[in-house]
Amino acid sequence: MRHFLTLKDFTKDEILEMLSLAEEIKAQTKAGHHEPYLNGQVLGMIFEKSSTRTRVSFEVGIHQLGGKGLFLSANDLQLGRGEPMKDTARVIGRMVDLVMIRTFSQSTLEEFARYSNAPVISGLSDMYHPVQIMADYLTMQEYSRVENPVVAYVGDGNNIVHSWMMLASKLGFTLRVATPKGYEPDAQVTQDALVFAAQSGAVIELMNDPNKAVEGADVVTTDTWVSMGQEAEKEKRLRDFQGFMVDDAMMARAKAGAMFLHCLPAYRDYEVSEAVFEAHADEIFDEAENRLHAQKGIMVWLDRQKKE
Amino acid sequence: MRHFLTLKDFTKDEILEMLSLAEEIKAQTKAGHHEPYLNGQVLGMIFEKSSTRTRVSFEVGIHQLGGKGLFLSANDLQLGRGEPMKDTARVIGRMVDLVMIRTFSQSTLEEFARYSNAPVISGLSDMYHPVQIMADYLTMQEYSRVENPVVAYVGDGNNIVHSWMMLASKLGFTLRVATPKGYEPDAQVTQDALVFAAQSGAVIELMNDPNKAVEGADVVTTDTWVSMGQEAEKEKRLRDFQGFMVDDAMMARAKAGAMFLHCLPAYRDYEVSEAVFEAHADEIFDEAENRLHAQKGIMVWLDRQKKE
Amino acid sequence: MRHFLTLKDFTKDEILEMLSLAEEIKAQTKAGHHEPYLNGQVLGMIFEKSSTRTRVSFEVGIHQLGGKGLFLSANDLQLGRGEPMKDTARVIGRMVDLVMIRTFSQSTLEEFARYSNAPVISGLSDMYHPVQIMADYLTMQEYSRVENPVVAYVGDGNNIVHSWMMLASKLGFTLRVATPKGYEPDAQVTQDALVFAAQSGAVIELMNDPNKAVEGADVVTTDTWVSMGQEAEKEKRLRDFQGFMVDDAMMARAKAGAMFLHCLPAYRDYEVSEAVFEAHADEIFDEAENRLHAQKGIMVWLDRQKKE
Repeated sequence: MRHFLTLKDFTKDEILEMLSLAEEIKAQTKAGHHEPYLNGQVLGMIFEKSSTRTRVSFEVGIHQLGGKGLFLSANDLQLGRGEPMKDTARVIGRMVDLVMIRTFSQSTLEEFARYSNAPVISGLSDMYHPVQIMADYLTMQEYSRVENPVVAYVGDGNNIVHSWMMLASKLGFTLRVATPKGYEPDAQVTQDALVFAAQSGAVIELMNDPNKAVEGADVVTTDTWVSMGQEAEKEKRLRDFQGFMVDDAMMARAKAGAMFLHCLPAYRDYEVSEAVFEAHADEIFDEAENRLHAQKGIMVWLDRQKKE
Repeated sequence: MRHFLTLKDFTKDEILEMLSLAEEIKAQTKAGHHEPYLNGQVLGMIFEKSSTRTRVSFEVGIHQLGGKGLFLSANDLQLGRGEPMKDTARVIGRMVDLVMIRTFSQSTLEEFARYSNAPVISGLSDMYHPVQIMADYLTMQEYSRVENPVVAYVGDGNNIVHSWMMLASKLGFTLRVATPKGYEPDAQVTQDALVFAAQSGAVIELMNDPNKAVEGADVVTTDTWVSMGQEAEKEKRLRDFQGFMVDDAMMARAKAGAMFLHCLPAYRDYEVSEAVFEAHADEIFDEAENRLHAQKGIMVWLDRQKKE
Repeated sequence: MRHFLTLKDFTKDEILEMLSLAEEIKAQTKAGHHEPYLNGQVLGMIFEKSSTRTRVSFEVGIHQLGGKGLFLSANDLQLGRGEPMKDTARVIGRMVDLVMIRTFSQSTLEEFARYSNAPVISGLSDMYHPVQIMADYLTMQEYSRVENPVVAYVGDGNNIVHSWMMLASKLGFTLRVATPKGYEPDAQVTQDALVFAAQSGAVIELMNDPNKAVEGADVVTTDTWVSMGQEAEKEKRLRDFQGFMVDDAMMARAKAGAMFLHCLPAYRDYEVSEAVFEAHADEIFDEAENRLHAQKGIMVWLDRQKKE
């Protein structure tokens, strides 16, 4: 049985299989047909952090696959009362068929998965956001089938960019990451990505100059400068990220017709200007909708692995 | 594509079509048959204000129509984190088939609808409560088919009476509204209703004497004197509403056998006496149940409009 | 129409019928078949107290029976706004097919049931936890078909032991209850159980010596020493329950191969040692899973009663 906790655990072929399933199921959905791949199954959805997109996309997705999403907030669970995660995992893992967890900590995911009878999917952690990056790549494929795209990430060295680094290094494309000094991606993740890149032929470049990163890029992307829980350091962050806003001037350095992606929520005139956001709204909301489709591919793939 | 944000936007024929659909689907439900009019569809249910009846009636209703209700509280969403409503609407409107919003502000409904790919239904706002009034009228029709009923509303000039004013002025019946001085319905709503009444032949009368309002009425109705958010002015309101309680003496002035409706929750011995409430409990709980049926009619009607 | 508020209301045969249904439906589920016994039905699930196991087991259970669980927290409802329980019961009882309530007070259950058109199931109250004890007994039956088992409960005289007393006194087996002085079961429950025991041949023994209780027992069980709402008296309770931890030494006094059951959450090295807990983890998590199956038996049984 496989879990989906980080892209680090998957081969290029496995990732492409999931994306291909996602495309296939999306085409069926768009044709008005919901094939019940997971008929009667229950997806337990555990949220330590609230989320619009993760909640709606997983709950609608499992419904369209013929199953049911069971939404559990930290309040609904007795996690707060100090029940060990391994007990919660053993109980829930026996009652449901799949589990999605959105958590503050990658180690919560790992411990839950160790004790769960059901496959576990990360719906975000402090370290990674792999379902988001799968949706992003699905969107890139839909807009253009460039063989080895150049993706430029401009902003904070957080869970989003960690997942981009895993994806690029596994699939073999070019990723340029520009962060302010002191906001670089995690050193261990960087080292892992460079090892995978050496095998796949990917180019992973870290830098502190956003303009250099976007030069001729096929895709520009960013994320909020102040994630949940970082509100206290907001003032400092806003100063440190001066010059990192993706605006028209920065987009002009990218390839003509370059995509702009944003995983939302977007803070206008901080990490992205209102003009760039609205000019690329079709891409951004296709990307948001692709959470639904990418996650269907992942769920169906995990279910097939369990049955093999 | 049509939204259901206020009865103001609908013609008499459209309102009667929705009510007729509601009656038809109710008869099927009572015969033990759930026709899957909205098979596989998802209704996003966004609650800025909590509610028993709205929650249960919409979620059971969409289930019985073959679809699924997805309950989202303000806490579950990231609305609190300052994401613009237009972004939330663009994301959710792509993932679900219908949206219900219970909100503090009619403008929230309008902005969401402007950006949503899916039809939006008001589950209550500061200005209107149209699904409630549809359920009320369905109940009136079930108890009696009086051609031009006289409805007397006694109490606060709030969202409930605004919707009564829209319904009466569109359908052409007589509505007498008695409020204390200073608690009259909104001036703009009143003016709109009078314009529609001039076309339909409705009689809309505002007054400050509850006894005059109920004189010979077919239906008497009221609502709480202290809505959510008004707790601070409770003392003042209780003084100002002296004499507005619907009790046996007041009901005795209405037509013999007159109905009493209440949208709940009911505060005994404030806006209605315990004796009147319990004497009319069958009507009141039929009215509550009719939220379920009226809303099914509205959802199916909106879905048909979308497909045309 | 019957409700499931306490085992006190049921005969031995009725209890065995529900357990037998549970076994039958569990076997179907394990064979990968979800027979839609409650097709299209809605189970309203009202939680005054949060709970992992109750939430997940009921919501998955009704789903696997072809119906839908509608989760309502106290926050979602307007119970907090002072609506009388009898009004809430009359509204919800008309919209759903079954109701589950997890409440602070047995009297809440009873009042809701009095006004509800739909059968009501206790999901725990201050006095009883009957669905848990049904799951426990189902687990005992699966591990061994001892005709008249000896069950030893060691710990607090709370809702869990009250339900054990009802089950034993109805079915006719031996229950030994060891509590510290001052933590004995409720006097009225004890008296009721002794009356039923006189009819069934059950042996119900109350004592203050845990070692005596477990002597030669087939099953040893316990529960947390500090339930929700008792946090203030935690220090005192920990002192008073000295010597009541179920550890290897205590289990050694029971019959060789005796079962250990725990309804969870378990507080290691308070009411049970980590070693005993993990040695019996298979039994304990089968017990947890059996909440799902036992409750299906109860729901289907109540539905059949309603239709007769």
